[in-house]
Amino acid sequence: MKAIRFDGDNVALAEIPVPVIAGESLVRVVAVGVCNTDLEIVRGYAGFRGTLGHEFVGVVESSPDPSWIGARVVGEINCGCGSCARCAAGDPRHCSDRTVLGIVNRDGAMAEYVSLPERNLLRVPDCVSDDRAIFVEPLAAACEILHQVAIDDSTTVALIGDGKLGLLIGQVLATTGARLTAYGRHRSKLAVLETKGATVRLSSDGHEDVRGAFDVVVEASGSTSGFAMAQAIVRPRGTIVLKSTIHGDVPFDATSLIVNEVTLVGSRCGRFEWALEMLEHGVVDVESMISRRMRLDDGDAVLAAAAEPGVLKVLVEVGDERN
Amino acid sequence: MKAIRFDGDNVALAEIPVPVIAGESLVRVVAVGVCNTDLEIVRGYAGFRGTLGHEFVGVVESSPDPSWIGARVVGEINCGCGSCARCAAGDPRHCSDRTVLGIVNRDGAMAEYVSLPERNLLRVPDCVSDDRAIFVEPLAAACEILHQVAIDDSTTVALIGDGKLGLLIGQVLATTGARLTAYGRHRSKLAVLETKGATVRLSSDGHEDVRGAFDVVVEASGSTSGFAMAQAIVRPRGTIVLKSTIHGDVPFDATSLIVNEVTLVGSRCGRFEWALEMLEHGVVDVESMISRRMRLDDGDAVLAAAAEPGVLKVLVEVGDERN
Repeated sequence: MKAIRFDGDNVALAEIPVPVIAGESLVRVVAVGVCNTDLEIVRGYAGFRGTLGHEFVGVVESSPDPSWIGARVVGEINCGCGSCARCAAGDPRHCSDRTVLGIVNRDGAMAEYVSLPERNLLRVPDCVSDDRAIFVEPLAAACEILHQVAIDDSTTVALIGDGKLGLLIGQVLATTGARLTAYGRHRSKLAVLETKGATVRLSSDGHEDVRGAFDVVVEASGSTSGFAMAQAIVRPRGTIVLKSTIHGDVPFDATSLIVNEVTLVGSRCGRFEWALEMLEHGVVDVESMISRRMRLDDGDAVLAAAAEPGVLKVLVEVGDERN
Repeated sequence: MKAIRFDGDNVALAEIPVPVIAGESLVRVVAVGVCNTDLEIVRGYAGFRGTLGHEFVGVVESSPDPSWIGARVVGEINCGCGSCARCAAGDPRHCSDRTVLGIVNRDGAMAEYVSLPERNLLRVPDCVSDDRAIFVEPLAAACEILHQVAIDDSTTVALIGDGKLGLLIGQVLATTGARLTAYGRHRSKLAVLETKGATVRLSSDGHEDVRGAFDVVVEASGSTSGFAMAQAIVRPRGTIVLKSTIHGDVPFDATSLIVNEVTLVGSRCGRFEWALEMLEHGVVDVESMISRRMRLDDGDAVLAAAAEPGVLKVLVEVGDERN
């Protein structure tokens, strides 16, 4: 089968065997999204080698449980060992021996087929199109914030970052009725959040007027300047949610964190169920975030396209029927 | 009156007028403790100039409300403006215009007299001796952790640091029944925590065996190595409490914080009521932490004594009756 793979130096389309993992289900991939994490992996993050991609929708081709065959599915990307204390506690996302689809020791979904344990699969309701289904994974990551921090219509929230994840987070935050201000670099990208009731501001306009103003600040820019801004605009006893990986050792002002009793929350993957439900009920607008449609055959060009300035989601279509 | 003051370069005993602040109460100081914050101020922290000291017990000499006169008191160190949103919300500790006794724009208690607003004063029960009363402020800071993080007898907690504050924190944590392991540099200092049921370990023995093991880690060493250890031994989705100021920009591994969804909580001053109650009921042992008794006349020598290795609390006695 064809797969877009990273060998540690280069990304290329390769011909490899269809994956056969005992006890797992085989999914024929229909579409896969390109995530910033894919771009980071290609720059060396996580030391991953293999098939990229973890935001997919597909159809189950074979499974130990035949009732899955033919089901249209998305897949939770963390695969726990199944036997440690974290897995026993229902949290394979933090199993220390986990593999992660296309990120840690497990071939990803930029391929004609992908293998996952049955327990990782979720059926996609008919009303959720393939285009929308590829957003389940990043939308779940956005929803994770609401599981970690109490946010309601009395909460003042700032969002920093108007990338793919930032826009999903902004839409999820908007569902709470929170008083949301979104900071970003592009007024055009922020527009979708304005339609959801957020106040939108350009980061370049500065933030002197909102020093210490926000109950909760979500850092989704992945930049040290974004983190510095978060520390400046959070109120005493407020919470900063770190949602986007900032690489290397990040300097932070521990004294200010302590004196102001600020809480810093690291936030990563979320549960898929809630995200699927949001897509089912149309409370978030994801279609408008698809900037380009490409094909698996485009190989490394799909990553190059995703890295272009101003591009939001690149959707990679897989499979013969659309050739 | 006599006062131990810092002028930005040196600490010295000085003769200054008794403070007269309209609307405030005047307290004759009986005893004052030396805190690590005092040592840090002398090294430049907070840019403070004036009379040092914020851990005091004294007797009210004059007050707008005569019912206070003659009362033995301790004093909450943060003085809010009284009119901002934080003060209105009952949290003058985070008022942006606050003064802080002996730390921010307000002369401290290493003096014969100290001035504080009436609302900052708390009566000390007769059964709490002067020696114990000077521990109210740091004990309140230790108790603050329990207001910020849920800890009970099912929680595994690591404490890093066996200084004055660390030992108070350890004793407060022990009251919860948490499974506590205390890491420090001195077995002799840690002994008090062993009597409270904690497992004690020398930091020098390493922590490879407890990587990712603790639900909650309290960093009270104020060192970058202590913070690095905290990040190593907290479990995924666990909480690190930063209790001791670490100066300057501290590098931290944001990627690991995010991937492991760790929460970092800055923690500072606490409410005095709970601390007074703990001292009243004798649930914490503070007397054994008094390493030296000195006199106000000892001037800068009280700070030098507090900075000596192995010294815990230096108690400074004030007033004629003990001459």
